Amino acid sequence: MSKEAIVLFAHGARDPEWAKPARRVTEELARLCPEAWVTLAFLEFMSPSLEEAVDAAAASGVESLRVVPLFLAQGGHLKRDLPVLLEAARSRHPACRIELVTAVGEDEGVVRAMARCAAGL
Amino acid sequence: MSKEAIVLFAHGARDPEWAKPARRVTEELARLCPEAWVTLAFLEFMSPSLEEAVDAAAASGVESLRVVPLFLAQGGHLKRDLPVLLEAARSRHPACRIELVTAVGEDEGVVRAMARCAAGL
Repeated sequence: MSKEAIVLFAHGARDPEWAKPARRVTEELARLCPEAWVTLAFLEFMSPSLEEAVDAAAASGVESLRVVPLFLAQGGHLKRDLPVLLEAARSRHPACRIELVTAVGEDEGVVRAMARCAAGL
Repeated sequence: MSKEAIVLFAHGARDPEWAKPARRVTEELARLCPEAWVTLAFLEFMSPSLEEAVDAAAASGVESLRVVPLFLAQGGHLKRDLPVLLEAARSRHPACRIELVTAVGEDEGVVRAMARCAAGL
């Protein structure tokens, strides 16, 4: 049983193919963090929801959970929708420390990788 | 005058701060490709539009233009909206070769960078 969880939080879409890159990030993250309980959750259209993912992690005994938004930037979803979801999750699981980090698109390494991709490098 | 253009194509949002990471990608891309005409365009809410960006590039004498979607994955916007915009742009500028590449989020280097960011590395 793992005590730490990392929940990748993506927007979701009606098209099942949309989630492919997010699933590849999830696989790569699980490879980088073999001790962690790693999962992918969605805001809408796809499952599990963030609520379901957090509940499953807490039920499995996770004590510390990091939510990582798979978004290019902080927009309305992260500024308005996500805090409400996290507040509710913290109320349901007071024994689990739930931390939110910044959107992956704001990370310097991700910015550089996107620029290199765009440059065809 | 540069003969090649790279247009980063992002979704856009009402919140001006949303565009910050996309602008950082644009700056980094311009640094990597100093010979290219590099710009950032948006699907909605922000300007310039893709139409405006392509028209400006063509007017400046660009002969080859690459559109790089700053999206995490191919969803409805890239599968339905973007082809229509590109077809119209090609009709307006038959002398300019307009190429579309895959969404940056599908690039292996970007996937790895997102996973490393999520892992806190």
